[in-house]
Amino acid sequence: MIGDPRASWVPPNHPRRESLLIRERLVDGFKEGYVATQGLIAHGRGECFDYLIGESSIPPALTAERVAVAALLIAKHPVISVNGNTAALVPRQVIELAKLVNAKLEVNLFYRTREREELIARVLRENGAEEVLGVGDDASCTIPELFSERRRVSCRGIYIADVVLVPLEDGDRTEALRRMGKIVIAIDLNPLSRTSRAASITIVDNVVRAIPNMIKFAEEMRGMPRDELIRIVRNFNNEENLRSVIMFIRDRLSELVSKGITLEFSKS
Amino acid sequence: MIGDPRASWVPPNHPRRESLLIRERLVDGFKEGYVATQGLIAHGRGECFDYLIGESSIPPALTAERVAVAALLIAKHPVISVNGNTAALVPRQVIELAKLVNAKLEVNLFYRTREREELIARVLRENGAEEVLGVGDDASCTIPELFSERRRVSCRGIYIADVVLVPLEDGDRTEALRRMGKIVIAIDLNPLSRTSRAASITIVDNVVRAIPNMIKFAEEMRGMPRDELIRIVRNFNNEENLRSVIMFIRDRLSELVSKGITLEFSKS
Repeated sequence: MIGDPRASWVPPNHPRRESLLIRERLVDGFKEGYVATQGLIAHGRGECFDYLIGESSIPPALTAERVAVAALLIAKHPVISVNGNTAALVPRQVIELAKLVNAKLEVNLFYRTREREELIARVLRENGAEEVLGVGDDASCTIPELFSERRRVSCRGIYIADVVLVPLEDGDRTEALRRMGKIVIAIDLNPLSRTSRAASITIVDNVVRAIPNMIKFAEEMRGMPRDELIRIVRNFNNEENLRSVIMFIRDRLSELVSKGITLEFSKS
Repeated sequence: MIGDPRASWVPPNHPRRESLLIRERLVDGFKEGYVATQGLIAHGRGECFDYLIGESSIPPALTAERVAVAALLIAKHPVISVNGNTAALVPRQVIELAKLVNAKLEVNLFYRTREREELIARVLRENGAEEVLGVGDDASCTIPELFSERRRVSCRGIYIADVVLVPLEDGDRTEALRRMGKIVIAIDLNPLSRTSRAASITIVDNVVRAIPNMIKFAEEMRGMPRDELIRIVRNFNNEENLRSVIMFIRDRLSELVSKGITLEFSKS
């Protein structure tokens, strides 16, 4: 982020610098029209949960990220779903991850409009994506049991995928994808959300840390024997891992109380 | 909220209906130009903390609300500070509270622009406010140690106030007001924020519940002898009360883990 012109107004020593720069990227995406108003509110919620885990990739997150990469590597048709917030926060990184695990990229929006779809596809192409699914007529297959625009997916992408990575997904769609028999990997900072509970592999981490971590794991694990990757996925228990996350937050709150530490969200 | 035309798209049985309707009011304020972009993100953060306390006025919140009303009732110059989010969420209610405790209303913005000031004053007037301080040239006194537009306050309002109610305030300004010797009542869903720590009386509650609760307390307590009100304020320990809030959240997380309960933020 060094040299980013948007960074100029944030003092280099500001205690909330990193968080403010992330937020700026989202606000830029909003001004450009591809981040939804609700995406801003969702981001604020994420900031809060991120605080509670200490704004770092905690051990259960790293475990889930490693398992997720194994699942993507053994998949026949892995797909990475991209929404407005993901495109604003980690455009280059999702493309890099997709290349490493040989996954397709698909635009998939909760608030789907043709304009937002195309803006996100453009952001991805500008960042090096060769193919972007799920735009316009390409999103002509439907997820059963979902209504209106939310059910539309690409027939060459999410519809036939066996493993789908959904950063920042909603509960309904996660459940519907699971009922279609897919392995769903969610990135969600709220360990108590329906998405977190419904996903096969839940990564409770900020997407700006989760995707780079997954890139590193993918580089390390690409050479692993398939049997070993399958073993990693089979040994994972998502419910147990989520429980560890909640315990982590609970213990952190106890620690914060005893130390009298202040958690500050800067508004500036 | 019954009969609200904006409510029509939210199914009556939606599990997140109340939260969605609150959010809509904020998005409306944003579209009308008086809620800041950062106000949307701050609202999302609030939603997260509200979840953690169970979206209800927990006992330490009710205690702080009662003490806050006592402080407002014994004040010589009580002032209620109003920003964009407050104007969007509880315009009528802050006016009602101001009347009950004989407080002045002052527009006070983190992102101050003449346009937003005037829009908020108009919202307050449309909701029945007779006098609104802090708009334009009225905000000509300054809070020491704060920079730029953030330090401007009304010479007839916050500047001379002995008790200030600041719903949704930032840490810097709370600390500066305290250094001026004022009793600062903050409404902040984050019990670990600098605002929460710096305030004299911190109400960890959603503003949409806190202000109505305070109206009820004000109606009950208006007739109390002054000595009794002073006793209520003197017996209050803010640090201890905040500790109770954090304990409450910690215990709630333990309970949620043991019950395997799902907390869902709906995006729809």
